[in-house]
Amino acid sequence: MEKPDDDKSKAVQEEEQVVNPWEVSAKDGGKIDYDKLIDKFGCQRLDKSLIDRVERLTTKEPHVFLRRGVFFAHRDLNDILDAYERGEKFYLYTGRGPSSEALHLGHLIPFMFTKYLQDAFKVPLVIQLTDDEKCMWKNLSVEESQRLARENAKDIIACGFDISKTFIFSDFDYVGGAFYKNMVKVAKSVTYNKVVGIFGFTGEDHIGKVSFPPVQAVPSFPSSFPHLFGNDNIRCLIPCAIDQDPYFRMTRDVAPRIGYHKPALIESSFFPALQGENGKMSASDPNSAIYVTDSAKEIKNKINRYAFSGGQDSIELHRKKGANLEVDIPFKYLGFFLDDDKELKRIGEEYGSGHMLTGEIKKILIEVLTDLVERHRRARAAVTDEMVDAFMAVRPLPNMFN
Amino acid sequence: MEKPDDDKSKAVQEEEQVVNPWEVSAKDGGKIDYDKLIDKFGCQRLDKSLIDRVERLTTKEPHVFLRRGVFFAHRDLNDILDAYERGEKFYLYTGRGPSSEALHLGHLIPFMFTKYLQDAFKVPLVIQLTDDEKCMWKNLSVEESQRLARENAKDIIACGFDISKTFIFSDFDYVGGAFYKNMVKVAKSVTYNKVVGIFGFTGEDHIGKVSFPPVQAVPSFPSSFPHLFGNDNIRCLIPCAIDQDPYFRMTRDVAPRIGYHKPALIESSFFPALQGENGKMSASDPNSAIYVTDSAKEIKNKINRYAFSGGQDSIELHRKKGANLEVDIPFKYLGFFLDDDKELKRIGEEYGSGHMLTGEIKKILIEVLTDLVERHRRARAAVTDEMVDAFMAVRPLPNMFN
Repeated sequence: MEKPDDDKSKAVQEEEQVVNPWEVSAKDGGKIDYDKLIDKFGCQRLDKSLIDRVERLTTKEPHVFLRRGVFFAHRDLNDILDAYERGEKFYLYTGRGPSSEALHLGHLIPFMFTKYLQDAFKVPLVIQLTDDEKCMWKNLSVEESQRLARENAKDIIACGFDISKTFIFSDFDYVGGAFYKNMVKVAKSVTYNKVVGIFGFTGEDHIGKVSFPPVQAVPSFPSSFPHLFGNDNIRCLIPCAIDQDPYFRMTRDVAPRIGYHKPALIESSFFPALQGENGKMSASDPNSAIYVTDSAKEIKNKINRYAFSGGQDSIELHRKKGANLEVDIPFKYLGFFLDDDKELKRIGEEYGSGHMLTGEIKKILIEVLTDLVERHRRARAAVTDEMVDAFMAVRPLPNMFN
Repeated sequence: MEKPDDDKSKAVQEEEQVVNPWEVSAKDGGKIDYDKLIDKFGCQRLDKSLIDRVERLTTKEPHVFLRRGVFFAHRDLNDILDAYERGEKFYLYTGRGPSSEALHLGHLIPFMFTKYLQDAFKVPLVIQLTDDEKCMWKNLSVEESQRLARENAKDIIACGFDISKTFIFSDFDYVGGAFYKNMVKVAKSVTYNKVVGIFGFTGEDHIGKVSFPPVQAVPSFPSSFPHLFGNDNIRCLIPCAIDQDPYFRMTRDVAPRIGYHKPALIESSFFPALQGENGKMSASDPNSAIYVTDSAKEIKNKINRYAFSGGQDSIELHRKKGANLEVDIPFKYLGFFLDDDKELKRIGEEYGSGHMLTGEIKKILIEVLTDLVERHRRARAAVTDEMVDAFMAVRPLPNMFN
């Protein structure tokens, strides 16, 4: 039977959403369907009972990113909490690909959350700066990738990590020794067909891409850091955005075969662009995001001019129908960065019912973000080169579990 | 038109010889056709005029492996000699994959020749032990690969290298830093399709194989050894068996694109098995080769029992027709290891004419090899762990060009 022509156009229309470490795009330019993503990736939803358990175990209020569902999925978080409850140690691993000089707010999210986890569980943390990855994917020079890694390290340190519990490393500096041995162990356990299935590489991709997944995999294994963990085969928990899940699916598949625990994951959704959830924060469009280097004036201007509003077209209509909170970027951003649950609820009710106008909620957001960015700027300005060297020194951390 | 059936069997019969780093097999179980290999690989034959030039420049008699055509092919050796004549520096790079404890005579050939080159040109030498490769290809543990690398280093040191000019390194020890940066530069310059074309990897091969070629490529670049060469972009000459040519074809293709000279090569044919040139030296058949650990009795026994003879079936016939030197293994082995040209010529004439019997030439070979192996054994026994550490220490070599 001949396939009718419109089947083809239908196939194009129904193109699936794409989420991998290099591309995040929703179906038909809409919103990412996170339920579908959880099904496809095979991770679990982070439910209320698990968040309650975190609160019980840490005797700390769960982070706003937990309460508001920013971190919404996980793998084996229960195992980590079981181990923690038994008094067993674990460590945190997160990272960043240093592809740009200035971070935007979305870049801060995993680090703000990891800082909370470090404080709440009192555990050591390794932060990988994948300058090798960016050198290969973005075609940056080795030197430029390394420079960006150091610049980004300053922003990361400015998030307040405890130097007695935190080791930051760049791949160009640190790959070698025990770390390289683990890379080889992973590499010999994964076929080319497997990485093609996971990452979608093609034959015209360079072999640097094929070689890289083990580099991001092995910080999940404590023996990659002999100066920290010696031969202690402790568990690892990875806070990250869910687009990094493919790396750790691969890692979890390999881990037991080479004698390690599968790393556990706690995964976030994506921070929306100013233009809305179907927009994309792009380095080539500075107006798509708030950067930690933006001035108060720039923040005010960007939010007032570009933040997608769920408010109605006229004041009259707005007073009558209220704002559509589902699509309103100022309200969504406040959901990330306004810690006060009651105040957020009040704003939602007033704005959603039309009592509050778009200009008013934007004013609140401008205050919150100006304050956040200003605090970050001050903290970053206080980060010296010596502090970067100290965080990145290969050294034991004798008090990392205190 | 239907393809007739016998075309297929003909295609199988006419299967090409295969020469790559993991497989060397001649067409139809015959001898390797080195002329064809030179054509296929695109290297050049090492002719008399080039050997004469080496002799002139070094004011040393060319090594027996040059005079007898063991090293028979090259790439850009003229460029190295031009540079040398202009007073420019170069360095040597060779290596070994440590897959077995005991080396056989074939394994010694590149090292004996490299020792001659080092002495003749008075140049530094880096020797790579690819324990990572063997860990991945032979499925050895990391620890066993490293142990074999150290054991093999002792045999290599026993060949007499000058510690003031020689740096031996294992990949598991040394990969990292400047070396890793060059690995990334190479990896991002080679597509997967390209390595498939060169090495014949399949989708079911693990990604360790795909990741490895840059590891063997980068010792060709002086910046991989900052403790030796700093920023000095000097040339590199690689003595190796011709099965390693694929790695360096890839390396030479990439080198100018990332700012380095193409490494020059001087390439040897393969050392034949005791069973003859269409036999194969195999680790699983100890009688296929003479090992440097064989006792005098074992050497005598192996040569008398297994060395393929070109002599005739009866003494009468032998006296009449003489030996076939083309296939005679004792005569071929003497071609590698009997330094005295006149004596070799005499033996060839007497044996080829039937004056000398198979038992007699075997007796000569037994003497030559027993002496060689005994000297190697004594030299190896004198190599201490401290000497291995000293050769493998990452250190400057201030007198490496003296």
